[in-house]
Amino acid sequence: MRKLGYKIFQHIVLYDFTAEPGNNELSVQEGEILTVTNQEWDDDSDDGKSTVGYGGSQMEEGGTMQRGGAHSTMKISLNKFPGFSKTPNPEVYLLTKSVAKGNDKLPIYAGEVGPVWLYPQIQLDCVVADPKKGSKMYGLKSYIEYQITPNTTNRPVNHRYKHFDWLYERLVEKFACALPIPCLPDKQVTGRFEEEFIKMRMERLQGWMSRMCRHPVISNSEVLQLFLNYRDEKEWKLGKRKAEKDEFVGVKIFSTIDPELPEEQKYEMYSQFTRSMDNSVKELLAVGHLHWKRCTGPLQKEYRQIGKAFQNLSSVFNTSAYPRESTLTEALSATGKTYEEIAELVAGQPKKDLHFLMETNNEYKGLLGCFPDTIAVHKAAIDKVKEADHLVTMNKISQQDKHIMEKNLSTMSYALQAEMNHFHSNRIYDYNRLMQFYLEEQVKFYETIAEKLKKALGQYTTM
Amino acid sequence: MRKLGYKIFQHIVLYDFTAEPGNNELSVQEGEILTVTNQEWDDDSDDGKSTVGYGGSQMEEGGTMQRGGAHSTMKISLNKFPGFSKTPNPEVYLLTKSVAKGNDKLPIYAGEVGPVWLYPQIQLDCVVADPKKGSKMYGLKSYIEYQITPNTTNRPVNHRYKHFDWLYERLVEKFACALPIPCLPDKQVTGRFEEEFIKMRMERLQGWMSRMCRHPVISNSEVLQLFLNYRDEKEWKLGKRKAEKDEFVGVKIFSTIDPELPEEQKYEMYSQFTRSMDNSVKELLAVGHLHWKRCTGPLQKEYRQIGKAFQNLSSVFNTSAYPRESTLTEALSATGKTYEEIAELVAGQPKKDLHFLMETNNEYKGLLGCFPDTIAVHKAAIDKVKEADHLVTMNKISQQDKHIMEKNLSTMSYALQAEMNHFHSNRIYDYNRLMQFYLEEQVKFYETIAEKLKKALGQYTTM
Repeated sequence: MRKLGYKIFQHIVLYDFTAEPGNNELSVQEGEILTVTNQEWDDDSDDGKSTVGYGGSQMEEGGTMQRGGAHSTMKISLNKFPGFSKTPNPEVYLLTKSVAKGNDKLPIYAGEVGPVWLYPQIQLDCVVADPKKGSKMYGLKSYIEYQITPNTTNRPVNHRYKHFDWLYERLVEKFACALPIPCLPDKQVTGRFEEEFIKMRMERLQGWMSRMCRHPVISNSEVLQLFLNYRDEKEWKLGKRKAEKDEFVGVKIFSTIDPELPEEQKYEMYSQFTRSMDNSVKELLAVGHLHWKRCTGPLQKEYRQIGKAFQNLSSVFNTSAYPRESTLTEALSATGKTYEEIAELVAGQPKKDLHFLMETNNEYKGLLGCFPDTIAVHKAAIDKVKEADHLVTMNKISQQDKHIMEKNLSTMSYALQAEMNHFHSNRIYDYNRLMQFYLEEQVKFYETIAEKLKKALGQYTTM
Repeated sequence: MRKLGYKIFQHIVLYDFTAEPGNNELSVQEGEILTVTNQEWDDDSDDGKSTVGYGGSQMEEGGTMQRGGAHSTMKISLNKFPGFSKTPNPEVYLLTKSVAKGNDKLPIYAGEVGPVWLYPQIQLDCVVADPKKGSKMYGLKSYIEYQITPNTTNRPVNHRYKHFDWLYERLVEKFACALPIPCLPDKQVTGRFEEEFIKMRMERLQGWMSRMCRHPVISNSEVLQLFLNYRDEKEWKLGKRKAEKDEFVGVKIFSTIDPELPEEQKYEMYSQFTRSMDNSVKELLAVGHLHWKRCTGPLQKEYRQIGKAFQNLSSVFNTSAYPRESTLTEALSATGKTYEEIAELVAGQPKKDLHFLMETNNEYKGLLGCFPDTIAVHKAAIDKVKEADHLVTMNKISQQDKHIMEKNLSTMSYALQAEMNHFHSNRIYDYNRLMQFYLEEQVKFYETIAEKLKKALGQYTTM
C-alpha cells in the first residue's frame, strides 16, 4: 500500500507539470490506472450550486467570470472588473476627483528604487495545515477543512476550499486592476489516492496564502484580515457581507492612492520584462519536466540494469569453483547493489529538489500570467488620456477634467511601479532561496553517490 | 578539427559495440557521414592476394578458413584444424602412442587448484606503439607498420597487420584444440579519420598481444618468440617457413602433454560456466552501450538545456533595471554555466571509464566465444572413447589401443583443466582491476560534479 501511494504521488506530480490547470485535465502515465470518482468528495458544491460556474454577485452583474484559463495566460476578462465595460476602460476612475482618506488610502512612499508599497513592521504569514474531513446533510456531502494559523494571532481558523475561492474572488474584484492576483491552486480531480491529492493541494494553498500575506497591500486589506482572524461564524458572515458590498473595487482602487512622486511611464518596460520572464520560466519548467521524467523513467531503469548486470556477473563468478575469488564476487555484488541504490536515489531526487524548483516556477508562471491584464488597464488609461485633447475640443470634457485624468493616470503609474518593485524584491528573494536550496540538494545528491561508490570500491583488493 | 576528430572517435567506439566484428559492418550514427575509401590503405593485400579471402596453406589443404564469425560465437570450423575431418574428431591423437620429449613437452604441473600450466618466472609482455605509414611499389601501395617491443629484449621489432594475422593463424593451427585463441581485433574499414582508426586498432592489437604474452604456453611457443625477437628479414623468413611446417599442430598438441594427475571430466562444468559468463558479459555490454548512448546523447542535451534555461533566466533578470540584483544574476549565470560543464562531463565520462569496461568485456566476449569449439574437441574425444569397447569387439582396434585412447583422453582433460585454471586466474585479475578502475573514475566523476555545484552555490548570498 505504501508503495502504491508513492507511485501515485509521482503521478500527481507529473500531472502538475503536464496538464493545463483549470480545464480538468489529468495526465496519466502509460499503464497507470486512476479511478476518477468525482462524487467522492464534494468539497465546493455543498451549497447546491454548480461546481463549474461561478455564482454570486459577478454573475448577477452580467460579467462572465472565467477563471478557468491556464495559469500561463490567465485570461481574466477585463469586463468582469466592476466599473469596466467590455474593453478595458479606466474612465470611471480617470475622471474621479475624490481621493480616499485615512485608512482607505493605499500606503505608497518614495523608496530608494522608486515608488514602493509601505511594508508592515512584521511580515504577515500563516500556516495552512491539518486537513480534516467534514460532512453535512447527514453525511451525504463531505468536504475538507483546512486549519489556517496566522503568525499575528497564532489562533487557528478553519476554511474550506470554497472559502479560499471566495477570498480569491474578492481580491480579484478589489485589486486586480493594480496588483496581479495569482489564481488559486487548481481544483483537483479527486480519486482513490485522496491523501496525496489533499497534501498537494494544501501545499499549494499554503504557497498562495503566503504570497498574499507577503503582499503589503493585500495583507493589510480588510478581507484578508477577516479571513485570517474571524472569531466566530457570525463575525465571518457579517464580514463577508461587508466585503461583498465594498465600493472601492476595480479601477477605483487607484483613487485610494495619493502620488507624491513625479510619474514616469514604465509600463512598456514592465510588459517586456514580465513577458520575457514568463518565457524563461516556461522554458525552465519544460526542461525540468523532461528531467523529472528521465530521472524517474529511463535513468532509474538503466541504473537498475547496470546494478543487475554486475550482480549477475558476480553470481556467475560464484559458480566457478575456483578458490579465493569470494572477495571479488562479494565486491562485484556490492557494486551491483550500489548501482541499484543509485537507481533509487536518481528516481527519488526530483521530489527532493526539482519539486520545489518546479513549484516555485509554477507559482511565478501563474503570477506572470496576471501581468498582461494588469498592464492592459494602464495601456487603456494612457490611450484615454491621449484622447483627452480631442474630447476637450469636442466639449465632451472640460480642461479641468483633462488635468484630473492626467493626474489620475500618474497615480496609476505610481501604483504600477510600486507593485513592480514589490514583484522584483520578492522575485530576487524567492529565486535566491530557491537556487540555494536546489544546489544544496544537488550537491548532497552527488556526494551521496560518490560516497556509496567509494564504499563499494573499498571492497576490492589491491593486487 | 579537434572537435570533429573527437566526434568521430565516439563514433568509432559506437561501432565497436554495435556492429558485428568481422563482417565489415560499420554502425553509423544518424546524421553522420563517413566516407569509406577501401582503397586508401592497403594494409594487408600488398602481396597481391585478396583482402577478403584467406590465402596460404589452409586454402591449399581444402579447409575453409572463416575467421569472419562474430567474436561472440567465433565459428572456427573444426575441419580447418589439420588432422581433423568435417566433424570434430580427435582420433588422430587418441590413438597416438608417442609422447613428445624435452622442449616440445607442454609444461603442466599439479597446482593448488588442480592442473596448472607452468608460469614463467618473468611474465612476458610487450608494448605495441608508434604506428608508421610505409609504402611500396613506388608509393602505389601503402600500409601501417607497428613497433612491438617485448619486455624481455627491450628491442623493438616492426610488424604490419598482416603479420599479426599470420601469427594468429599459426596460433589457431597449433593451439586452438586445447587453448581458446581469441580473434584478432577486426580489420577496420579505413576512412577519412584514419588517425583515430589506427589508434583504436593499435589499442586492440596491444590488448590481444598482451593476452597472448600472458599465456604461459603461447608465450613460450617458438612462433611467438620469433614474432617478438627476430633480428633481421632473413631470420623472420626462415622462422616463418619453419613454423608453417610445424607438425605438432591441431589435436597433436595433446601428445606433448604428460599427465601426472588422475584425470577428472570437468568439461560440462566448464561449458556451463563459460556459457553463463558469455551471457553475463553480453548483458553488461548491452547495458553499457545503452548507457553510453544516453550519456553522450539525451543526457548531455538535457544538462545543456538546464544550463541554458538558468542562463536565460539570468539574462532576463539582468534587464529588470532593479538595483542590487547583480549577485543573483551572476550566481544564476554561473549555475547555468556549471550545468553546461556538467553536460560535457557527462558526455565525456564514458570515454574515461566505460570505454575500458567495454573493451575488457569485449575481449572476454571474444575469448568466451572460443570455448564452445575448444570444449567440442573434448566432447568428441569422450564420444570416441565411449565407442572403444564396441570397436574392440568389432576388431577395429586392439585392447591396447583402447587403453591408449583412455590415457590420451585423460591427458586432454588435464590440459583443459590447466587452461581453465589459467582463464580463471586471469579473469579474477582482470575484473578486479577493471572494477577498481571503473569505480575510481566514477567516484571522481561524481565528486567533480559535486565540487562544481558547491562552487556555484557559494556565489549566492545568504539573506
